[in-house]
Parts: sequence; C-alpha cells; structure tokens
Amino acid sequence: MSECPLPFSDYDRVVLAHGGGGRVMLRLIEDLFVRAFADPALALAHDGAFLRLAGPVAMTTDAFTVKPLFFPGGDIGRLAVSGTVNDLAMCGARPHALAVSFVLEEGLPLVELERIVASMAATAREVGARIVTGDTKVVERGKGDGVFVTTTGVGEVVAPEAPRPSRVRPGDAILVSGPVGEHGVAVMAARERLEVDLASDAAPVVADVLALFAAGVDVRCLRDPTRGGFASVLNEIARTAGVGARVTETAVPVRPEVADVCELLGLDPLYVACEGRFVAFVAPGDADRALAVLRARGGAPARVGEVVAGPPGVVVLEGPLGGERVLDLLSGEQLPRIC
Amino acid sequence: MSECPLPFSDYDRVVLAHGGGGRVMLRLIEDLFVRAFADPALALAHDGAFLRLAGPVAMTTDAFTVKPLFFPGGDIGRLAVSGTVNDLAMCGARPHALAVSFVLEEGLPLVELERIVASMAATAREVGARIVTGDTKVVERGKGDGVFVTTTGVGEVVAPEAPRPSRVRPGDAILVSGPVGEHGVAVMAARERLEVDLASDAAPVVADVLALFAAGVDVRCLRDPTRGGFASVLNEIARTAGVGARVTETAVPVRPEVADVCELLGLDPLYVACEGRFVAFVAPGDADRALAVLRARGGAPARVGEVVAGPPGVVVLEGPLGGERVLDLLSGEQLPRIC
Repeated sequence: MSECPLPFSDYDRVVLAHGGGGRVMLRLIEDLFVRAFADPALALAHDGAFLRLAGPVAMTTDAFTVKPLFFPGGDIGRLAVSGTVNDLAMCGARPHALAVSFVLEEGLPLVELERIVASMAATAREVGARIVTGDTKVVERGKGDGVFVTTTGVGEVVAPEAPRPSRVRPGDAILVSGPVGEHGVAVMAARERLEVDLASDAAPVVADVLALFAAGVDVRCLRDPTRGGFASVLNEIARTAGVGARVTETAVPVRPEVADVCELLGLDPLYVACEGRFVAFVAPGDADRALAVLRARGGAPARVGEVVAGPPGVVVLEGPLGGERVLDLLSGEQLPRIC
Repeated sequence: MSECPLPFSDYDRVVLAHGGGGRVMLRLIEDLFVRAFADPALALAHDGAFLRLAGPVAMTTDAFTVKPLFFPGGDIGRLAVSGTVNDLAMCGARPHALAVSFVLEEGLPLVELERIVASMAATAREVGARIVTGDTKVVERGKGDGVFVTTTGVGEVVAPEAPRPSRVRPGDAILVSGPVGEHGVAVMAARERLEVDLASDAAPVVADVLALFAAGVDVRCLRDPTRGGFASVLNEIARTAGVGARVTETAVPVRPEVADVCELLGLDPLYVACEGRFVAFVAPGDADRALAVLRARGGAPARVGEVVAGPPGVVVLEGPLGGERVLDLLSGEQLPRIC
C-alpha cells in the first residue's frame, strides 16, 4: 500500500499486478487510461475498437524509448503521439485513431505515468485524433527502463496523390519546415545536465501539412527528420527514389544554441533528430507557395536544395565557400535513445 | 565485426546502431524485415503503409514481453501475431494488416531475432494478414529483456453485428473453444525447466471464428482468455455487460497435464492464459450449431455455462458436488510475463 494513494491505484509505483489482468490492472485501465483518453471506443471495454474509415487509409507505428522520459519541451507521451500523427501526415493522411501500448518497468512512479498519459491525451486532442485502444504490460525492475510506448495510427489519406518517395523527380525543390536538430540536442542536454536555453521541437506538424494540400501544393514526398536527422532523410529518399540531391549548407536553418551544443558535443546538427519538423519535396513551381503557406502559419521554413538526376542515392552538400562534399548516411546514430 | 556474419548484419548480436537510423539499421530493415514480411507496402520504404479498407474497421494493439522468448509450441513472434489477429477476430473482423514494433536489447543474438521474424511472417501468412509497416528501437544492455514486440492490427468487420459485451443478454450460452491454460503452463514449465509433455496453444483462431459467422451463428460476444485466463474473461464481460454468469466447473475442459502442473505450482487453471482459445457468448438456440461448427474444424469445444440476469458482474462456479462459489477476479496475475 502506498503512503500517497492515487485515484487509479492503491500503489504509488508500478507493480507487476498492474499488468496482471486482474483487479489492479482493471482499475489502472478504467480510472487512468479510459478517463484520460475519454473515447467511446475505450468505454466499450472490448479487445479492440470499431472505426469508420473512408477511402484510402494510411497506417504507421513507432516505438518510443527516449531517455529521460521528461525533457525540456516535451516528454515521451507528447513525443509518441506527435511522432505517429506526423508519420500519418507524411503519408498525406489526416490522423484518425491511435492505439497505444505501454511496457512499464516495475517501480515506475505512477505520477510519472499519469503525466505521460495526460500529455498523450492533450497532444492527440491538438490534432483531433482519438486514442481508441491500448495495452499495458509490466516487466520486472531492471528488465525495462521506466516506460516504453508504442503508438500506432491510422488516418484517411486526404492528399490528391499520396506523397511517397517514388513521386520524387529531378527538379523538385527540397524544403525544410523549420530549424533542425532541436529535439536531439534538447534531450542530450537534459541527459548530460547541460545548462542551455533549448527546448525540444516535439509537436504535431499535421496542420502545416494539411495546409499545404489545401493550398494545392504538389507535394511529391514528405518525411520527418527524426532518427538520423535531416541528412539521413535526404539519403533515404534519394536512395528509394533513385535520384540525387544537392543541398546548400548555409540554407539549412540551425539555431545558434543548437550549433553551439553540437560543437561542444562533437555532433553534426544535420544528423540530429527533429520531432516537429518535416522535409518536403515539392514541384519546382510550387516551392514559393509552399514556403508562403508555412510562413503564414508562423513557421520559419527554408528552401534548402533540389533534386537532381544523379548520381542516384547521393546527396551533395554545397559548402559556404563553394566546396562540395557528400552528405552520407552514418553507420549508426550519434545520439542513442532520443526517440 | 562478427565471426559469423548474417545476411542482414555484420554483427551477430544487436548493437545500438541497429536502431540508429543509419546504414546498419537500414540493412537490418531491408535485408531482414522487408524480405521476411514480403509486402509491397514495406517495399515502398515510406513512413507508413497505404491500405484499402472497406466498411467498418476494427483496430487492436498488444505488447508482448513473454519470457522465455522461445517455449514449447511457440515463440514471442507467433504469440504476437496470433494475439493480435485473434483480438481482431474477437471483434468479428477478418485481419487485414499488421504493424509491428520491436524494442531490442543490445546483445540479443541476431539469429534469435531472425527466428522470431520468420515465425511472425509464417503466422501472418496462415491467416492471410499482411505485415505492412514497422519500427525498431534498440535499448542498452540491461534496459530491456531481449525483445519486446508490439503488434497492432486492423481488419474489416465481417460479422453482421459486431460482437461486443453490450450484446450479451441473460440466457446466452457460454462456450469455450478448447481446453484452457495450456499456454501459461507451457511457458511456466519452460521457465522453471519442468519436464512436462505440454505445448502452448498459441495459434490464430481466426478461421474458427469466421466459420461461426459463415454458419450464421448469432455470436453476441467473443473474448480470448489470455492474461487472467477463462475466469477473468467471464468477470470482465459480466461486469461490462451488467449481467451474471453461471459456469459448471466440470464442463470447463482442462487437460490432465495442465491440471497436474497447476497442482504442482499452486495455480488454478481457470486463471491461466490461453493464446489459441476463445470464449463465445452465443444466442441459446445457436449453441449446438456453434459447437458442431468448431468440432467439424477439429476443435474440442465445450458448453460451459450460461448468462443470467444477476447479480451483475458476478460469476458463479457450480462445483461437482453441487456446491457453489464466486469465481472472482484476482488482484494481479498468478504468472507474470506469459504474454
């Protein structure tokens, strides 16, 4: 028994019984999850949710293992919901419903779980997405790390043609919706206890993306530069689409605080994760309109380069002094566990 | 570098770079996941999958943390796919597409991951479900436990009326599709290294459920007795539907080997998880037809009780000598980490 009982548990920390299928779990589900997520599908108390979806549907999933669970500008809950609704937006879809699964480590303070759940509910509300079904498992102390969250989303494709790598062609303009690297640097700074005035950019980008479609921009492909950052996204798309890309280094927006921390830690900001930005490949004649739409919504987007015929899969970075280098994929990640 | 290179990695164990968003991860995705799951949506190499779904859709998610990863009769991969397609079947839906997310612990032998992935692919094929999108994260050694899998599924509801707790009414017959408790006991026996001739029942029940609908059985509600077993399922449904239930103890099928291990370990088989069984609430006049359909498909189903008006939420077990007792929800779980 706890010294400080919560409305959804007689315990103040996660115990194995919270995943055990009995009374203790049922109370956690009914009095924490069902209340916070407040969706009629959850109130059904069934093994799944019933949805009405029209037309082509996009589906995406992501696991989140970020450390620490709370960081300047966000937490694992906001990150998980943003990451999944953003991936739906990258598919040209309006997020409709999310499924969430938790792997909790025995000993996690339940107030932390409550904060995470509240953050998920709030972030989903921001974009009008429902949280309709879920699952909770508990592992013994030392067999997990606080909480891992997997969010899976479905949404209706609203783009006239679904954006995807195969639609990218030479001449397309490459845009980025805002400065890069803030999420990764904020998490790293929190982990290393660095004193910097930086917050994660973790946020849904759904409304920005829908605004591009509403304005009739021919969006060929979208990708959010999470793990591996801006540089890896360009490499992935170039590789899949069988095209090359040329990027002007000075055009890629990087905040001075991000550049400073990166220099201190020996990181390249072009490889550092964002969680509230996207890279857009748009038809060349639509680039200015796309930038205007994003600026009108308060963003600070930039045109950073263009797609070229080849060499396929190669991303070339043009330096400030006219030099060029290949912006390659790294082997692994500069920063582990940032999402 | 490994002494024994695999076709999808230069390493023989999971390293942080396998989740790092760079070359090492890309190769794991392309040369293990995309090949094994062999779906055009994965070959798109996008952030999500595009699906065509008609009519009402069911969505469900489950995290799997079973220990050990391999056990007699199955493994975490078979369990994860079975669990999710079965939950869709419980919603009266034909499984269409699955999203899979992995949280891998640094140090996991990659041959184990390969076996798990092959098992997922094979189980999905059994029921005609596609694996269309996924995600992989890696956590440091000691921050996970080999592999956790979250599977999320969507399917088209084929039942004329979607089975759900609110459709249950007094008089409904309660059936179970086969003997209970085998999965939990098999996993526990593997964990405790007991010498018993027992295998998990982990398997898709989709075809059995679809056969009930095809035969026109009025299926009011379905639930697979996983965590918490048969007894917990009855309690959950009774509670949600606001009805009571009466069950004849001797009618609930339990294999002698399961009963023996339960006696040895001090467990009640009615609370032990199955992963290839379901409990069906059917209209009273349809019970015999339902049993005949399941028997014709090679099953060993049983009629075990009936729904009564009240007291609401109370499940009464009628013993062999005429005695009665309340079959209550446990507080937690008798067996942690069985799914």
